[in-house]
Amino acid sequence: MSLEQLKELATEIRELILTTVANNGGHLAPSLGTVELTLALYSVFDFSKDRIVWDVGHQAYTHKILTGRRDTFHTLRTKGGITGFPKRAESPFDSFGVGHASTSISAALGLLIAAEIENVDRKVIAVIGDGALTGGEAFEGLNHAGQLKKNLIVILNDNEMSIDKNVGALSEYLSDLRLMPQYHRAKKEIEGFIKNMPFPDIGEKILVAANSVRSGLKSAIVSGTLFEALGFTYLGPIDGHDIRNMQTVFSRLGVFDTPVLVHVHTKKGKGYAPAEKSPDKFHGVGKFDKATGRVIKKPAPPSYTEIFSQTILDCAAENEKVVAITAAMPTGTGLKKFSEIFPRRFFDTGISEEHAVTLAAGMAAGGLRPMVAIYSTFFQRAYDQILHDVCLQNLPVTFCLDRAGLVGEDGATHHGVFDMAYLRTIPNMNILVPKDENELRQMMFAILEQDKPAAIRYPRGSGLGVKVVSTPQKIPWGKAEILRGNETANVAIFAVGTMVKNSLDAAIILNGLKISVNVINARFVKPLDTETIKKFAQTVKLIVTCEEGTLTGGFGSAVAEFLADAEISTPLLRLGVPDKFIEQGTRAELLDICGLTAEKISQSITERLYELKFGFLTVEK
Amino acid sequence: MSLEQLKELATEIRELILTTVANNGGHLAPSLGTVELTLALYSVFDFSKDRIVWDVGHQAYTHKILTGRRDTFHTLRTKGGITGFPKRAESPFDSFGVGHASTSISAALGLLIAAEIENVDRKVIAVIGDGALTGGEAFEGLNHAGQLKKNLIVILNDNEMSIDKNVGALSEYLSDLRLMPQYHRAKKEIEGFIKNMPFPDIGEKILVAANSVRSGLKSAIVSGTLFEALGFTYLGPIDGHDIRNMQTVFSRLGVFDTPVLVHVHTKKGKGYAPAEKSPDKFHGVGKFDKATGRVIKKPAPPSYTEIFSQTILDCAAENEKVVAITAAMPTGTGLKKFSEIFPRRFFDTGISEEHAVTLAAGMAAGGLRPMVAIYSTFFQRAYDQILHDVCLQNLPVTFCLDRAGLVGEDGATHHGVFDMAYLRTIPNMNILVPKDENELRQMMFAILEQDKPAAIRYPRGSGLGVKVVSTPQKIPWGKAEILRGNETANVAIFAVGTMVKNSLDAAIILNGLKISVNVINARFVKPLDTETIKKFAQTVKLIVTCEEGTLTGGFGSAVAEFLADAEISTPLLRLGVPDKFIEQGTRAELLDICGLTAEKISQSITERLYELKFGFLTVEK
Repeated sequence: MSLEQLKELATEIRELILTTVANNGGHLAPSLGTVELTLALYSVFDFSKDRIVWDVGHQAYTHKILTGRRDTFHTLRTKGGITGFPKRAESPFDSFGVGHASTSISAALGLLIAAEIENVDRKVIAVIGDGALTGGEAFEGLNHAGQLKKNLIVILNDNEMSIDKNVGALSEYLSDLRLMPQYHRAKKEIEGFIKNMPFPDIGEKILVAANSVRSGLKSAIVSGTLFEALGFTYLGPIDGHDIRNMQTVFSRLGVFDTPVLVHVHTKKGKGYAPAEKSPDKFHGVGKFDKATGRVIKKPAPPSYTEIFSQTILDCAAENEKVVAITAAMPTGTGLKKFSEIFPRRFFDTGISEEHAVTLAAGMAAGGLRPMVAIYSTFFQRAYDQILHDVCLQNLPVTFCLDRAGLVGEDGATHHGVFDMAYLRTIPNMNILVPKDENELRQMMFAILEQDKPAAIRYPRGSGLGVKVVSTPQKIPWGKAEILRGNETANVAIFAVGTMVKNSLDAAIILNGLKISVNVINARFVKPLDTETIKKFAQTVKLIVTCEEGTLTGGFGSAVAEFLADAEISTPLLRLGVPDKFIEQGTRAELLDICGLTAEKISQSITERLYELKFGFLTVEK
Repeated sequence: MSLEQLKELATEIRELILTTVANNGGHLAPSLGTVELTLALYSVFDFSKDRIVWDVGHQAYTHKILTGRRDTFHTLRTKGGITGFPKRAESPFDSFGVGHASTSISAALGLLIAAEIENVDRKVIAVIGDGALTGGEAFEGLNHAGQLKKNLIVILNDNEMSIDKNVGALSEYLSDLRLMPQYHRAKKEIEGFIKNMPFPDIGEKILVAANSVRSGLKSAIVSGTLFEALGFTYLGPIDGHDIRNMQTVFSRLGVFDTPVLVHVHTKKGKGYAPAEKSPDKFHGVGKFDKATGRVIKKPAPPSYTEIFSQTILDCAAENEKVVAITAAMPTGTGLKKFSEIFPRRFFDTGISEEHAVTLAAGMAAGGLRPMVAIYSTFFQRAYDQILHDVCLQNLPVTFCLDRAGLVGEDGATHHGVFDMAYLRTIPNMNILVPKDENELRQMMFAILEQDKPAAIRYPRGSGLGVKVVSTPQKIPWGKAEILRGNETANVAIFAVGTMVKNSLDAAIILNGLKISVNVINARFVKPLDTETIKKFAQTVKLIVTCEEGTLTGGFGSAVAEFLADAEISTPLLRLGVPDKFIEQGTRAELLDICGLTAEKISQSITERLYELKFGFLTVEK
């Protein structure tokens, strides 16, 4: 294709991305920023043979469109449609599945080593953003690749943004590199200057000094960039929207006997004015009006994130030891306002969940009360730090886990369904799950009254629209809340978080079938309110647990453990997310698939009661 | 103290460390390398006010001896004695508990921020080895500290070693820094040369060029080291055994308005010839003869590590797609021989469990069969990568988890008791646990016949001394092995790994009490052999699970889940590690504490049978 044709194609692709994301929601700004970069890569490399790994993968829409998914692209992020991230099962061109940040260098190095061992001649490219580059795993990958001296190609897609504005020393360093073309010119001039130094008459001393200059400079140039110190050849920065220029550079990358890092400067949201202006808002966005860039919002109650956002301000006002930490997501987690009102007590660590958690542990060891806001799925990165740095030392760090449960359209890589199960394995951990947005607020106050590690997990999106009470209401520690309690009922549902409402609705359906049901808001996954479980176990025929989290090791598993340990033989029905990866879809679709709608909960209960040979049949007598 | 007194003290401390570790075992070489460094730090800083965080903590024996633990130091690593790592509960001078690598910069930064917010004037120092510096979390910490521009002090204790020889581009870079004092001299000379350039008569062009040199050099010097690129002031390298020199440098660290990294060059094992010669062998060592350096080994069967070491060679010979990965522990995990025989198929990634796992996923996506050998406790670092990169893509990566279960003297930070519980939460994962060293070998063969993610976990130390069979024996996938099966028995113990032998022994004790017991070697924690469990549940009065792993979410929990789901009401007794952190002690002491000796297992069973109002009383009829 000619340059003109490529430019035309870029325009078409941008239009397709824009129209699709306006309809379906998605990662608009990252993908708009990489249209030319992707076209340049595809015009130079042969991806029937070569391999590319997109870090995070939210910038890979052009890649998808170019590799056989143009006609189905309108199904992006819908149930059964094209996924929002590269996925091996979807296309042979998706050489490695992604979703979480900072994995691309490691994965690409693995693919390159495999090709070598299998004697396949293949270039392998990792494309990583400046945001993802702050994650420790990316550094581990660079460090290893730098030693192996293989021709791994890393494209640094530097748009000066993580999800929000990028932070960290590395980000400043990249900015220096971008802003100092004169530095690069200077290096060249120095080299020329020394090479041609025409001073035979100036005397030995100067010559010695000149030689020092030469050798000193050589060292300086060799170790002139951070990436060169790590064994990479550094090229750039180059304009990531100039296809011709990128083609020129990319076509020469195969000749190095070292790994190469090409620093490409792109504009997040490129080509769509509203996204260029607010790349954070258009990073991951819901449906919006293409003409105005206005996000289409149905009227809805405040989100859990908004209630968190307000409550942590109140916590900080109340307790001067409260500090807030985010790993690169001040906007997403709702900490933006906190960062403006309490800038000295706010810390954005960049994409670095491990560091964020140990930093919080250090702060707590120093007497503070850190609250760390992270999406449930990304919190998985810090399992060891939660265990080894926070819980082993029993330090009062509070983890606020947003997007817990099924997140919908982002799919398998992003569901926050493992948190209760993996956190429960850790001694000293406390796990709280609010049934609604008011309880989120009250639980945050309750946690601050304790001196313990605690995690509170809450879902994506709107609350239930309940009244949010300003002044703290009592949440007795470790106690469940009985919402429907009837001594003659045959069933007791212990529900967690979002499932409290669905269980109450199920109870109404069951009531219509003449099955009387107790509904208990578990509130605490750890410590478990064993007293309340025991009490109900003595009166009902069936205990049901219901959670928007994995059944394997989760809340229902905790109840099963307790019943066994306490020698209670009351039958137990566990409802939750099955032991498999759940794909994308709307939240409603996914809850249905997992059997977690009120109707499905009710059905599961009637079926189990029938199997147990009591329940609605006997009740009807 | 005078320099002479400090030197004398150094000799005394070395002698105390040497004598104690020869008796108790411990981390000899790292701690011998930091005697002078610690003395220099203590003579400059005031740790009643200032704070120090030792990365990993295995080099902190001098610190312990200097802070009130000289007289109790002989109890090092024994039950109730001094722990092998800094621990907050043990001393106010242990400002942050450590054990796993690469956390010190994050924790120290947290302590420094806390001091600032609490308005306490305090220096905070992190001491980190060149090995630990390769861990991604350390980079995340540097990146954040570099941006905050606080006067954090990082001492890089560079002994050119991780646990084995350090690897990675960073390690080469540090070596360059050490080997290039002439580079540093050159920089100075260049600066002087330019400042004094006396060429007013050489014409404008040269002056412009000279200016370019000046500005170019300024950039070059400013970004002259990797650490400076990350916002740190870099000082060094300096001799880590020259107390006076270190005092001079350390006393000036408070003046910077940036974080400072002091590059200190030490010798691992310093002052004890056998340890200087073999710092890897004396990194963490058992009892040894001080005079000869010979490790005291009781005659014992080959260790699980040795059997793994041999078997992976056989796997590689059999299947050319097999590659081996270690994260900085070729010796500890038993991969040294593999690295010598199959160097092209061996990868030491440095301390970087996250990268190691994603690298393996990339290799598997490229068609290989990677086997990743990591200690169970360190594997916690990679929970997200196991889930997101390996299991979500269902890639055939094999994880070989050494030191699973209670590890003994290293204590709470190092027990590998969480692996079964946290791995079980992950869809597509397979978890195998061999009852003895022969089964370890056979299971490795069995895994290679499958095309799935799998983890095999095995304990520290000697095997049982069983015959290890060369040719593969059949391990039916997902099936338990019935070792004692009697249709009239009242009890069925489903035992995992090491607990198979203890359960068999318990069965003998119980037999003496006329209680007949079935013993089943579970073999698979996931998938669970539900068929066998169901079968026994129909004939026995009590099912017992027995595992050297946490009860919370572990194997017993899986059985409890299954029984509930399958509507089986047979009582279940779960034996394992309780939901708290277990301190140090010999393995025998710790098994006793956890109730996992044959005697304790037997007692727990008789007690439960009595409570259930059947069992040995009725059996005696």
